[in-house]
Parts: sequence; C-alpha cells; structure tokens
Amino acid sequence: MKIRPLADRVVIRKAEAEEKTASGIILAGAAKEQPQIAEVVEVGPGGVVDGKEVKMEVAKGDKVIYSKYAGTEVKVEGEEYTILRQSDILAVLE
Amino acid sequence: MKIRPLADRVVIRKAEAEEKTASGIILAGAAKEQPQIAEVVEVGPGGVVDGKEVKMEVAKGDKVIYSKYAGTEVKVEGEEYTILRQSDILAVLE
Amino acid sequence: MKIRPLADRVVIRKAEAEEKTASGIILAGAAKEQPQIAEVVEVGPGGVVDGKEVKMEVAKGDKVIYSKYAGTEVKVEGEEYTILRQSDILAVLE
Amino acid sequence: MKIRPLADRVVIRKAEAEEKTASGIILAGAAKEQPQIAEVVEVGPGGVVDGKEVKMEVAKGDKVIYSKYAGTEVKVEGEEYTILRQSDILAVLE
Amino acid sequence: MKIRPLADRVVIRKAEAEEKTASGIILAGAAKEQPQIAEVVEVGPGGVVDGKEVKMEVAKGDKVIYSKYAGTEVKVEGEEYTILRQSDILAVLE
Amino acid sequence: MKIRPLADRVVIRKAEAEEKTASGIILAGAAKEQPQIAEVVEVGPGGVVDGKEVKMEVAKGDKVIYSKYAGTEVKVEGEEYTILRQSDILAVLE
Amino acid sequence: MKIRPLADRVVIRKAEAEEKTASGIILAGAAKEQPQIAEVVEVGPGGVVDGKEVKMEVAKGDKVIYSKYAGTEVKVEGEEYTILRQSDILAVLE
Repeated sequence: MKIRPLADRVVIRKAEAEEKTASGIILAGAAKEQPQIAEVVEVGPGGVVDGKEVKMEVAKGDKVIYSKYAGTEVKVEGEEYTILRQSDILAVLE
Repeated sequence: MKIRPLADRVVIRKAEAEEKTASGIILAGAAKEQPQIAEVVEVGPGGVVDGKEVKMEVAKGDKVIYSKYAGTEVKVEGEEYTILRQSDILAVLE
Repeated sequence: MKIRPLADRVVIRKAEAEEKTASGIILAGAAKEQPQIAEVVEVGPGGVVDGKEVKMEVAKGDKVIYSKYAGTEVKVEGEEYTILRQSDILAVLE
Repeated sequence: MKIRPLADRVVIRKAEAEEKTASGIILAGAAKEQPQIAEVVEVGPGGVVDGKEVKMEVAKGDKVIYSKYAGTEVKVEGEEYTILRQSDILAVLE
Repeated sequence: MKIRPLADRVVIRKAEAEEKTASGIILAGAAKEQPQIAEVVEVGPGGVVDGKEVKMEVAKGDKVIYSKYAGTEVKVEGEEYTILRQSDILAVLE
Repeated sequence: MKIRPLADRVVIRKAEAEEKTASGIILAGAAKEQPQIAEVVEVGPGGVVDGKEVKMEVAKGDKVIYSKYAGTEVKVEGEEYTILRQSDILAVLE
Repeated sequence: MKIRPLADRVVIRKAEAEEKTASGIILAGAAKEQPQIAEVVEVGPGGVVDGKEVKMEVAKGDKVIYSKYAGTEVKVEGEEYTILRQSDILAVLE
C-alpha cells in the first residue's frame, strides 16, 4: 500500500535516532516549532494549489529539515509517516 | 436519495474499524487534528471556488486520509457521511 | 412581500421536523457547526462578489444541507427564513 | 445638510416600530448579529473599493435587511442614521 | 510647518463643540467605534497603496464623518490633528 | 558602518527632545500607537515587496511622523536607530 | 554536510559576542521582537514563493540585522544556525 499525497503535500519518514547521531546532526527546538529531520518518501504532483502554481523542489530520498507541528502523522502498515505541505520544509541537507 | 456536493466539496464515508484492521492501517492522532481514513462517495464539480480554479483530483471509491475536524457530519437515510473540501484531503491510499 | 437577496446570498426555509422524519433524513451535529436541512426559497443574482465572480448553483425548491451559524435568521409576515451565502451551502439532496 | 457616503457605503434610517407592525415584519435576532430592517436614504458611488470594483445594487427608498453591528450610527440635525457598507445589506424587501 | 500625509492618508482637525451645536449635528457613539465629525486639512496623493490604486475622494475643507480609533493623533505647533486613511472616512457632510 | 535597509524599509533616528520643543511640535499618544517624530537616515530601494510594487516616497533628511511600535530599534556604533516599513510612516513635516 | 535552504529562506549564523563588541554594535530589544545581528551562511534560490516572485537581495557573508523569533534554530555537525525567510531580514550592515 502506497500513500499518494495530493497537491503540494509531501510524505516524510523521520530519521531514526541512531542515524542522527551517526551524521552528527542535533536539532535545537525553538520556542514555537520543533524542527525535525526526516527523509522524503513520497512527493505530491504540485500544480495549482489555492490558486497559485507550486513547483515541487524536493525529491524522494532527500533529507529535509521541517517544522514538526505543520504536518499530520499517519501510521500505514505499521510504519509512521508525516504528511505536510512543501512550504513547511525549510531546507535540504546535502 | 443522493447527496450532490457543491463546488470543491467531497462526500466521504468513514472506513469501518474491521476494514482498517484487515488492511493493516492504523492512524495516529496529531495534536490539533485527528487524521482519518475514509472512502469517497460523491465528488463535487470543482470549478471556480472563492475566485480560484479548483480541479478535482479524487474520484468515487478512492480511499483517502483526511483531517476529521475540517468537515461536517451528516446522516442521510440512516448512513453517516462527512462533507468536506478537497483541500482537507491529504492523500490517497493505493 | 418578497425577500430579494443581494449578491451571492440565498434565502432558505428550514424543513419541518415531520418532513425530515418522512424522508428519513437525520442530521448529526458536528463540534463547531450544526448542519441543517432546508428548502431554497429565493436565490440572489450572483455576479462579482468581493471582487470574485460567483455563479449561483442552487435553485428555488432545492433541498440543501447548510451550516446553521453562517446565516442570519429573519421573520417576514410570520414566517421564519435564513439568509446565508451560497458558499455556506454544502450540498443539494436529490 | 446632506450625508454623502463614500465608496460602497450606504446611509440607512431604521424603520419605526409602528411601521414594522403595520407591514407585519418581525425580525428574530441571531446569535452573533441582530438583523434589522431599514430604509435606504443615501447610496455611495461604488467604484473601486479596496482594489475591487463594486456596483451599487440598492437605491434610495429601498427597504433592506442588514446586520446591525456592521455600521456606524450618526445623528445629523436631530435624526438618527446608520452608515454601513453595501456588503452588510443582506436583502431588499419588495 | 505643514503636515504632508503619505499615500492615502488624510489630515483632519476635529470640529469644535460650539460649531457642532450650531450646525445641529450630534454624533451617537456605536459599540466599537466612536464616530466623529472633522474638517479635512491635508490630503495625501493617493496612488498605489498596498498594491491597489486609490483615488482620493475628499478635499481640503470637507466636513467628514470618520471612525475615531482608526487614526493617529498628533499636535503640531500647538494645534491637534488626526492622520487617518481615506478608507476610515465614512461620509462627507454637504 | 552603514545600515542598508532592505526592500521598503527605512532607517530613522528620533528627533531629540530639545529640537522638538524648538520646532513647537508636541505629539499626543493615541490609545493603540504612540506617534513619533524622527529624521530619515537611510531609505531602502523599494521595488516588489510581498508581490506588490512599492515606490519610496521619503528621502534622507525628511522629518517624519511614524507609529512607534511598528519598527525595530537597533543601536549601531553607539547611536540608536529604528528600522520600519515605509507604510508605517504617516506623514512628512515640511 | 551543507544546508540548502528552499525558496526565499536564508541560513544565518549569529555573530559571536566578542565580534559584536569589536565592531561596536549593540542591539536594543524592542517590545515584540529581539533584533539580532548575524552572518549569512546560505541563501535559497528565491523564485515564486506563495505565488509571488521573490528576488534574493542578500549574499553569503553579509552581516544582517534580523528579527530573532521569525526563524527556526538548527544545530548541524555541532554548529548552530537559524533558518528564516529573507523578509525577516531588516537590513545589511556595510
């Protein structure tokens, strides 16, 4: 079973704690939003969203920093994902 | 009796608990919205909504993940439905 | 005396309790809005509303589901009506 | 002395209690706004208001239903008026 | 020293109490804004304001009704003025 | 060291108390914003700001009236400045 | 590992306390936002953001004044950064 996000939504899977330590990335929480690191699993088609053209800038496999509270958490076939808008993704780690 | 949704609205029927277990889908609730799985029953015509062109991307029979509090619940001829905007549908399960 | 609604407004008259039972329609109230069934009595001309072109999609005699708190209740010549915007009408029952 | 309303504003004078009884019109107050009946006294020129073209749809002498709290009350030469935007007028009584 | 208002702003000077009595104008305060009468002293150039073309419709010497809390009070060379946007002027008294 | 404001921002320096008395300008504080007099020190380039074309209307050396709480105070090399948007400047004193 | 900001976002690194004293820059905090000085580390590509064309006006190495609470703090490989929108950068120090 596959999650196909609509419009400018992106499905991400949080990086595991071990992986974060290995890459040396630690994220400090700000007052109003908890930044998170995750891997992009599925990318919506973009297109006209709320009357504005949106071009998708992230791709499957990208490691991204996002704002935790912006998305919705779902569990599909035992695995946890977050569905959020691309505009809630702040940056890609390269 | 049929419910014909206006504009970019979609009529959905929540998946039953049994079905959810069979497909192995369990949905975790986020802080501000309870994600839900449902089946699309009727789809509005789309078109110009609040001055913006909306193209309908879901179809009858689609299994979708949506945000519970966005819609309005109605009971017609003994069956419960939810009417919500397509923009409140996050993803399609395939 | 006739109520002529302006712009994208619609005048509706709530279906009576008896009628609702006869047609087998029961409406469950959501957390923030009480859905209602009503009959369309008068329809505004539509046109440019708040700078956006609005086309009227409902007609006199339509049975509609709407959100109760969106409209304004008026009593004219002893009969109660509700005046609301077409965008507060969720669906037509056919 | 004459009140010339600017833009999409309309000057109205509330119908007197006696007149309301004579015409058989009684207005029930909703939760958040008190609907009112009034007579249109002066109509602004319309035109571009907040970047949007507004066409005036009411005329002097029209009996209108409006939302009380939307306007500003003024007393000129001993007579009370209300100045409000045309979009706060819900319907015309004919 | 002269106050040159920017954009769609207007400088007004409140009518004195005596003058108000002479002209027979008494202004009743509404719940959320206190209407006021004043004389226009300076008028901004209008033009593109917040991306929208604004044409100035009031002129020096006009008696206007405005909403008190919308503007900013200033005292220049011992005289009190109010600077407000033209959209906060409701009507001109003629 | 020079402060180069971005977009439609303006750097101002508050007029000293002595100067204010000399010019006879006294500013009365309104309920929600404290008007201030200041001298323009640097002017941003204007251009497209938030999707709208902004043309700068103030120049270095202008005496302006502005709303105090709209800007951000900074101290550079011992001198205090305020950085604010041009739309927070109400008028120029001439 | 490099942080590639999306859209109109900018990655900055706060200037150290020592450096601030050396350059003689001291920043006073306003009521609602704490201005900060920082160095630009990475600049997003700009382009169409929320339906509006954004041109990036800051460059790597620029010393900038920004509003602290607008951004999100992240720590990558032991170093702390802030990711914010270019519109939250008030001015460049030259």
